[in-house]
Amino acid sequence: MKVVLACDLGGTNLRMALVSKDGEIIYQLNDETPKEKEEIIKRLTLLASMCSSEAQKIGYEVKALGIAAPATLNSKEGIILEAPNVPALNDLPICTILEHNLGIKCFLENDANAAAIGEQYFGAAKGVNSLLMITLGTGVGGGIILDNKLWCGADGTAGEIGHIVVEPMGAPCGCGSRGCLEQYSSASAIVRMAKEMRIDYPESILYSKLFFSAKEVYEAGKKGDKLALKVFEQMGFYLGIALAGLINVLNPEAIVIGGGASKGWELFIPHTIEQIQKRAYKQPAQRAKLLKAKLAEMAGVLGIAKITFDKISSVAMPNI
Amino acid sequence: MKVVLACDLGGTNLRMALVSKDGEIIYQLNDETPKEKEEIIKRLTLLASMCSSEAQKIGYEVKALGIAAPATLNSKEGIILEAPNVPALNDLPICTILEHNLGIKCFLENDANAAAIGEQYFGAAKGVNSLLMITLGTGVGGGIILDNKLWCGADGTAGEIGHIVVEPMGAPCGCGSRGCLEQYSSASAIVRMAKEMRIDYPESILYSKLFFSAKEVYEAGKKGDKLALKVFEQMGFYLGIALAGLINVLNPEAIVIGGGASKGWELFIPHTIEQIQKRAYKQPAQRAKLLKAKLAEMAGVLGIAKITFDKISSVAMPNI
Repeated sequence: MKVVLACDLGGTNLRMALVSKDGEIIYQLNDETPKEKEEIIKRLTLLASMCSSEAQKIGYEVKALGIAAPATLNSKEGIILEAPNVPALNDLPICTILEHNLGIKCFLENDANAAAIGEQYFGAAKGVNSLLMITLGTGVGGGIILDNKLWCGADGTAGEIGHIVVEPMGAPCGCGSRGCLEQYSSASAIVRMAKEMRIDYPESILYSKLFFSAKEVYEAGKKGDKLALKVFEQMGFYLGIALAGLINVLNPEAIVIGGGASKGWELFIPHTIEQIQKRAYKQPAQRAKLLKAKLAEMAGVLGIAKITFDKISSVAMPNI
Repeated sequence: MKVVLACDLGGTNLRMALVSKDGEIIYQLNDETPKEKEEIIKRLTLLASMCSSEAQKIGYEVKALGIAAPATLNSKEGIILEAPNVPALNDLPICTILEHNLGIKCFLENDANAAAIGEQYFGAAKGVNSLLMITLGTGVGGGIILDNKLWCGADGTAGEIGHIVVEPMGAPCGCGSRGCLEQYSSASAIVRMAKEMRIDYPESILYSKLFFSAKEVYEAGKKGDKLALKVFEQMGFYLGIALAGLINVLNPEAIVIGGGASKGWELFIPHTIEQIQKRAYKQPAQRAKLLKAKLAEMAGVLGIAKITFDKISSVAMPNI
């Protein structure tokens, strides 16, 4: 059987897997993402080699390696351009290097784009032709599929849904702008908003905690903590503002919402839906199904596997 | 020679023209758009017949009629759905009716979509593959061309750039939302903002005028009137907010800006560019050229002509 190596190279975690054409994960290795460029390359080479050996043992043929990275990138040339959360990857011609190290063809795609393809082929959006994927993680990522094709834009940088402005004079964003969606609907935004707003909620469980995570805000919210509920209301409100705009502009069939912070679904989604109903045109608003992502942390791996299979079937494979 | 009838059915004006395949306007009739449904149909039938007679006289063969309408619509079925500025058109199966009256095939497209195609083939964006068209008129319309294809969305309602939220708690919009781009960057918004802000500008030419138009605000601005300049600053600021988001999400090659209110270009565009530079990612911001529309009020007519030629060359023509 033919398989591909599929790698999700995240800011914190690194996943390398052998994946079959129908999305079956045959073998998988997880690791932490090293901080230094050389270490990252070494680790990727090692994990890929280990997976390849495993494949050989069980008689599978490894056709290529696909890498999903949290970065703007030049997919055609296989070069990572800017990776705000893993700066070591900036300007890295990762495909050329790994092709040299591993002797197999290597492909590169943005992680949110890969997740979009993953959810479309193997997850929540099976059978949907046009969809937006939004990942509410440390940041907010996005992928756009129109008529079954990833829309990457003129430079391959499209899909930055997290950097739609939803509050013109709002919180400063790492991208240099202010009031980006990412500042209201990401895991880090949940923590920031809770810290900013807690002065008005002395009765909150979170009032006097030195440190807490988005998960703790969620757990407080589940227990009825008013501060936490207000935070998720804000998160859902601004997500709704951004989605209403995207629905009016792109009229997609579905919007898949994933990422760690999407676990707070029942606390924020009613506010998101309220804003969409108030603000988007009726027909496209009714059309756009809001779907909870199904593949969790495997969306990137499965998506880049699918993309890699498509690439090797569409290009003539040189012997390298 | 083969020609098509191309009609721009606007909220105020109605244009019917004989257009050749290379965008030459051979004959043209202008009229006002009647208020009643029956009157509109009668007028369209009359103008189309007059143009057809003219074509016959000079030996041209009329192949079909294309209509551009300021509405959400079902292009496939030829039905207008919602036309906020010409409510008489709501739910009108305009193609079936005109095909019956005229005996030629009839096609329908949104006016901003038609203008986008017009500017791409005959105007400011020749040779550009992926572009956004924004018309700053009474309202703010939009058209999206990705990889040389009009992106109309799952229901044909895509492109409503005017209804991106740029100020969550901003001015109420006719669409039911608040703070839409249309409320800040349209001709009507210019007048509204000037009226709201003039209390702080007693020295303004506009301070004590009972009625004034967007054009008068522009003329005041050209003379250095501070109120007028502030209004255009606001207009450009919010346009920049919306465009920065679209650049991050869609990474287009160009953005064509047209419509009556775009005549204030030199007063608002510096503020638009400032926001884009501050807020959009560097690479896609550099890529997206801001282009002034070239075809003015003829963009719709020329675009729907091009669309109509494409349709008749791609479908088998039934005898009707």
